[in-house]
Amino acid sequence: MTCVANVSARPIDGNVTAPQGFRASGVSCGIKAKGLDLALIVSDRTATAAAVFTLNRAQAAPIIVSRRNLANAAGHARAIVVNSGCANACTGSEGMRHAEIMAARTASTIGCDLAEVLVASTGVIGVQLNIDKVTNGIAGAAAALRADGGDDAARAIMTTDPFPKSASVEIATAAGMFRVGGIAKGSGMIEPNMATMLGFVTLDAFVEPALLQRALKAVVDDTFNAITVDGECSTNDCVFALANGASGVTLGNDDYPVLIEALRQVCEPLAVGIVRGGEGASKLITVRVTGAASDADARRAARAIANSPLVKTAIHGGDPNWGRLVAVAGRSGSEFALDTAVVRIGAVELFSGGAPHDERAPQAAEYLKGKDLVVSVDMGTGGSGTSQMWTCDLSAEYVRINAEYRT
Amino acid sequence: MTCVANVSARPIDGNVTAPQGFRASGVSCGIKAKGLDLALIVSDRTATAAAVFTLNRAQAAPIIVSRRNLANAAGHARAIVVNSGCANACTGSEGMRHAEIMAARTASTIGCDLAEVLVASTGVIGVQLNIDKVTNGIAGAAAALRADGGDDAARAIMTTDPFPKSASVEIATAAGMFRVGGIAKGSGMIEPNMATMLGFVTLDAFVEPALLQRALKAVVDDTFNAITVDGECSTNDCVFALANGASGVTLGNDDYPVLIEALRQVCEPLAVGIVRGGEGASKLITVRVTGAASDADARRAARAIANSPLVKTAIHGGDPNWGRLVAVAGRSGSEFALDTAVVRIGAVELFSGGAPHDERAPQAAEYLKGKDLVVSVDMGTGGSGTSQMWTCDLSAEYVRINAEYRT
Repeated sequence: MTCVANVSARPIDGNVTAPQGFRASGVSCGIKAKGLDLALIVSDRTATAAAVFTLNRAQAAPIIVSRRNLANAAGHARAIVVNSGCANACTGSEGMRHAEIMAARTASTIGCDLAEVLVASTGVIGVQLNIDKVTNGIAGAAAALRADGGDDAARAIMTTDPFPKSASVEIATAAGMFRVGGIAKGSGMIEPNMATMLGFVTLDAFVEPALLQRALKAVVDDTFNAITVDGECSTNDCVFALANGASGVTLGNDDYPVLIEALRQVCEPLAVGIVRGGEGASKLITVRVTGAASDADARRAARAIANSPLVKTAIHGGDPNWGRLVAVAGRSGSEFALDTAVVRIGAVELFSGGAPHDERAPQAAEYLKGKDLVVSVDMGTGGSGTSQMWTCDLSAEYVRINAEYRT
Repeated sequence: MTCVANVSARPIDGNVTAPQGFRASGVSCGIKAKGLDLALIVSDRTATAAAVFTLNRAQAAPIIVSRRNLANAAGHARAIVVNSGCANACTGSEGMRHAEIMAARTASTIGCDLAEVLVASTGVIGVQLNIDKVTNGIAGAAAALRADGGDDAARAIMTTDPFPKSASVEIATAAGMFRVGGIAKGSGMIEPNMATMLGFVTLDAFVEPALLQRALKAVVDDTFNAITVDGECSTNDCVFALANGASGVTLGNDDYPVLIEALRQVCEPLAVGIVRGGEGASKLITVRVTGAASDADARRAARAIANSPLVKTAIHGGDPNWGRLVAVAGRSGSEFALDTAVVRIGAVELFSGGAPHDERAPQAAEYLKGKDLVVSVDMGTGGSGTSQMWTCDLSAEYVRINAEYRT
């Protein structure tokens, strides 16, 4: 896990428009049957930009266009345009043309280079965008841009998310204050189809593109990439960050720990919010792995536990089933020493020294009645590898949502 | 995938006692509240033996004892003793002593070396065996050994399996006939806890230990290791094979393809039977991956699809959701070319040339009303890698079974 710097940070109400020099909007352009479905986030000056894209090899058109634009603009951007209701994925050359039109129309409307626009889409796979609705929507969204428009943007990127996800923080440095804000959408389905995770982060500090990219990648690994609802990874997942320098604060290489902590304070609540809003989720589960041979081993074990249907159903049922945690840690592929491993549910140690403590099961069962739970496994190797992931329980409601007939 | 030899094989009714020189029994010794819970399989002469053990690093005591005995006997065995109802896993040094007593008591009762006994257990994790009940059971099972006792053995190894799993085949060779038989238990839960997969195979051909081990490993990779119910791997999984030569037929290195095919014809129906009896399963799904860069890539993609909750819930709901198959193949980590990939549900091609054929969705939906389904993905790389896995749908019943309160 990334080290945490001791930074003077104050969480504030807000989102992508909390930092200075950013405006945003969310409008309804008719892609979804009802509700906001097109979001625009614009910096009043060219910002440095960074992005983390899905590793899925079936990449949607907006992912391909955004990656290319970011490279062509050498890590700079003015705007992010996003539609919900249609993922523009598996849509061939026509889909590529539509994503390019989204970028071009946004650029001409707000007055910037084509390459300074990042594009994202979320919704049903394999359906063409109605590009006329989208271009009309872009005109409307540009007209609606406001310095307090971030909340509308947060709502416009939702699919069946149960609630919008926003976070913001104010950081005090010797050079002055700066702010970071963000919005995200998560594991809702549309119609239903593949869930997509989108995250957009703004900063009013100035950060060189390479430093911003390095920091964003590191923070995403410990936040957006440390969550799972069902182990799936979409064709459209992306996280974008824009840093416009409007606060007058510049963060250089020496300020990397401050930058990391500032981004983390926004990305972590957004990521955890996605899990809380996971399909059919009734409990948030923090999985902590320690005593692993390496951080990579710890992450592999944490991911296996966080995705295990047996662990997720046991917690759904309030069952302190430490045997499943031992078995999943053991099969994860990571080094594991049964005789020295320790399994805890909350603070209750249920397995250690190679033997169970089933007499403590009632305490653990009581703890599992809560909604915000921690399960911990020490892998018993004596190593210093640690990792943390967030997941949710697996419910019959998840099955119902995802088994519903689509066509 | 392993090549298939053209072998004259005739499936017959039967199980581990179909081959000559094997006797078996299943008795009730009181570990389970009711039903048979102790099985014995004995060869009338020392057989060569092979085994494939769970890769889980939390290995149950019977796994450790069987591995050691097999090495001490240089790949030979006379008997397999199995209890259900208690996994003897996570039970520390007392559990090791119990597994050793199971082997020793079986050896003294049937009159063979201690190292010539293989031990297996399945059931609840973290509870000590009642070893007095087990040793009484071993005496009873030895007295009950019969040349047609394989069916009782198949029942005695079940936990909550909905039905026993048996298969047998007769193979004609130039040197004469030989038989292979097997029993297995699968993804049932007890109380509920970790599912365990056990498979026991007997042959009346003579096969050198090294050749038997090589063949068993290869066949298990394409059968027992090509199934998944929920992606879990137990602390107790194992497959044992005994070859006693009672038919007078000897299989040497040149007969390797015959041996492979003979073992496959028994192991495949046993493995598929485990999936059919999977928790909450209502459909058997065969996942076929072709056009991959390598067999390893194909296997990785097939495994990702077979374990995907989004794919498994879609099929449960009868939804021909090709987008999920594309997305999972794309995120599997294997090489994937979206523009040339092909997705089929049954014989219905739903995605190819980078574009969907949603007009065919009704045909695919009709097909998905069946109980025995094939989904196929060509990874589009032009490579010759192929793989096949079997899985089942994911139902609300799975969640109900596994979320039930244990303590």
